[in-house]
Amino acid sequence: MTGSAPGASPTGAVRGLWVTFEGGDGAGKTTQAQLLQSWLENEGCRVVRTREPGGTEVGVLIRNIVLHHRGDVAPRAEALLYAADRAHHVAHVVMPALAAGDVVVQDRYLDSSVAYQGAGRVLDADEVRDLSLWATEGALPDVTVLLDLDPQRARERLDADDKPFDRLEAEKAEFHARVRAAFLALAAAEPDRFLVLDATLPIDELAAAVRARVAPLLPASGVGTPA
Amino acid sequence: MTGSAPGASPTGAVRGLWVTFEGGDGAGKTTQAQLLQSWLENEGCRVVRTREPGGTEVGVLIRNIVLHHRGDVAPRAEALLYAADRAHHVAHVVMPALAAGDVVVQDRYLDSSVAYQGAGRVLDADEVRDLSLWATEGALPDVTVLLDLDPQRARERLDADDKPFDRLEAEKAEFHARVRAAFLALAAAEPDRFLVLDATLPIDELAAAVRARVAPLLPASGVGTPA
Repeated sequence: MTGSAPGASPTGAVRGLWVTFEGGDGAGKTTQAQLLQSWLENEGCRVVRTREPGGTEVGVLIRNIVLHHRGDVAPRAEALLYAADRAHHVAHVVMPALAAGDVVVQDRYLDSSVAYQGAGRVLDADEVRDLSLWATEGALPDVTVLLDLDPQRARERLDADDKPFDRLEAEKAEFHARVRAAFLALAAAEPDRFLVLDATLPIDELAAAVRARVAPLLPASGVGTPA
Repeated sequence: MTGSAPGASPTGAVRGLWVTFEGGDGAGKTTQAQLLQSWLENEGCRVVRTREPGGTEVGVLIRNIVLHHRGDVAPRAEALLYAADRAHHVAHVVMPALAAGDVVVQDRYLDSSVAYQGAGRVLDADEVRDLSLWATEGALPDVTVLLDLDPQRARERLDADDKPFDRLEAEKAEFHARVRAAFLALAAAEPDRFLVLDATLPIDELAAAVRARVAPLLPASGVGTPA
C-alpha cells in the first residue's frame, strides 16, 4: 500500500486501473491476486486489495445475513443483497480508489453473480446482470482475469479416492459445470475485458500472463488514463 | 389471528386480501391498520398484520444496517437493501398468507419507497418502482389506503410554538412536501388500487371509510377470490 501515485495524466486528471479475478472455488483467485498485488507494489503502484461480497463494513453485515440464513433467504432477496453490497463497495471503495489513481485488485465482481445466480436456474442471468449494473451505475473493470478450471478436475485434485457420485454430488457437479460454462460465455461476450487462463497451469506462468496483460495498462504508463 | 379461513372459493382455490397503508409519519397508519385488524378479526377473518421494512427476521437485520449506517450507505445500496427486505417479506410472509386465504394488513409497501427515495432526488422514482416490482415479481396490494396529510399542518399540530423555519427545517419541509406530492401522484395513476383519505378527519370516520372499501372485497364474500 506504499509508493507514489501512478495515475497522474498530463492534464492532471487521474484514473487508476481496476482488475478483477473470477472463477470457481479453488481456481487460485486469491493466490493470483496476491501475486499481482506484490508485483504492482514493487513497481511503485498504490494498490487497493478488496473483494466482493463483504469488502466494506456494511458489506460484511450484508454477507453475514446471506451466510447465516443460507437456504432461507428468498432468491430475489439474496440477489438484491449481493447487489446492495456491490453498490456500496463500488461507491465507497472502488470509485474513490480509481479517482485517486490507485490500482484496485479485487476477488470476484458481477460476473460471479451472473454465473452463480444464473446457474442456480431460479433467476435469469440477464436480469442479475442488469441489477448489478444498476447498482454500480454501469461500472465495469478494465481487466477481468478468469481462472478457468474444469470442476470435475478440481474435484479429482481435491478428492483422490475414486468413489462414484451420489445424486447430490452429481447435482452439485452439474451446477458447477453450469457456472463454468456461464463464466466462459461471459468472457466470450467481452473479449476486450476478459483474460481467460487455464487454471491448471503452474502458478508462476499464470502470474506472468496476468502481469503481461496488466503492465501496459498501468496508470503511470499513460495508457487507460482517460476518466 | 383466530377465526375460520375466509377465502374458500367455490372451486376450492383460496386467495386472501392484501391491504397496505401509506402516508407520511404521523398520518395515522398504525392506528388505522390496528382498527382494521380488530374489525376483520371480529368478522371472523384470519389477519396477518405486518410491516415494511423489517417484517421478517431477515428484514430486521436489513433494516438495522440501514438505520445504524444512516447517511453512510450509498443511495443505490440503500434502495437495494429495502428491495431485498421487500423480496423476502413478500415471498415468506405475504404470498403464503394470501395463498392460505388470509387478510394481510400491512404498514408501508413499495409506494413508500417510490415516494421517499424519489423525493430524495438522488434516484429516479420509476427506477425505484421497477426495482421493487422485480423484487416481488410484480406483486401489488388489492387496496392501498393513502392517509394524506399536509406536512405543514402535521408540523403545526406537533409543534405549537410558531417559530420561523431555519434552513434545515425548510429543506426538510420541502422534502416532505415532495413525498406527499409523490404519494398523491401514485394514487392518481392507480385509482382502482388507492383509497385516498384526508388524514385530518376523525379517526372513526377514517376507519369507517376503510371498512367500506375493504368489506366487499373480503375473501368470504366471494369477491376477489380468483387466484
